Amino acid sequence: MAELSDKARKLFEDPNYLFVGTVNKDGSPQVTPVWTDVSNGHIRFNTAVGRAKERNLRRDPRVGLSITEQGNPWNKADIRGRVVDFIEGEEADAQIDDLAEKYINQRPYPWRQPDEKRVIVVIEPERVYEV
Amino acid sequence: MAELSDKARKLFEDPNYLFVGTVNKDGSPQVTPVWTDVSNGHIRFNTAVGRAKERNLRRDPRVGLSITEQGNPWNKADIRGRVVDFIEGEEADAQIDDLAEKYINQRPYPWRQPDEKRVIVVIEPERVYEV
Repeated sequence: MAELSDKARKLFEDPNYLFVGTVNKDGSPQVTPVWTDVSNGHIRFNTAVGRAKERNLRRDPRVGLSITEQGNPWNKADIRGRVVDFIEGEEADAQIDDLAEKYINQRPYPWRQPDEKRVIVVIEPERVYEV
Repeated sequence: MAELSDKARKLFEDPNYLFVGTVNKDGSPQVTPVWTDVSNGHIRFNTAVGRAKERNLRRDPRVGLSITEQGNPWNKADIRGRVVDFIEGEEADAQIDDLAEKYINQRPYPWRQPDEKRVIVVIEPERVYEV
């Protein structure tokens, strides 16, 4: 497990978008932006069970990440990592509310669908490339 | 080939960063931000010959893309595409100068290395997901 530098950790603590790359079943790449935070050295994001990136990561835990500072893209980190946990239930419901507060200053998360199950995807950083 | 909507094309015409996902030789995903433009319905970016993403795309032309508007990440597009051309030489040298002007208001591109060969990676969009 690679340690995040203070600079990289600050990129995750501030409300910057994280671009998550996964690999589809047919071997093609897929990239989408997510809200993110850091906990105990792990990078986390929150999605709904069944979304393409979640299905992809259940099949292959390897993940490519890229994050830049809003308004200052020179401050950035590209990260290679591996999913080590999927957390559902109350903890996932609480995290999406925390992230909504962080990114859009609203609590609870305003776009919750009654039928969706939230999940925290927990990533161990393996290699961090900073510029 | 999918057509870019006016809204998606504007995301590429404005100086927004494009996040490019490729697949490494070992099957893991890789994501990095690049400068981009659109020409004749194709999405293009400029890199140096030999960089990881360029090597990856020469081996497997499938690419995952994500672009958001600076300061307004709700305006975004995720795109699945395929590399249809690699253009080196004078045209690539001219494009990196155009992109430097677009993104940092400088011409020529100020960080050119004497030993690097620039290359335009030309992408045909196959599927565009707008939110």
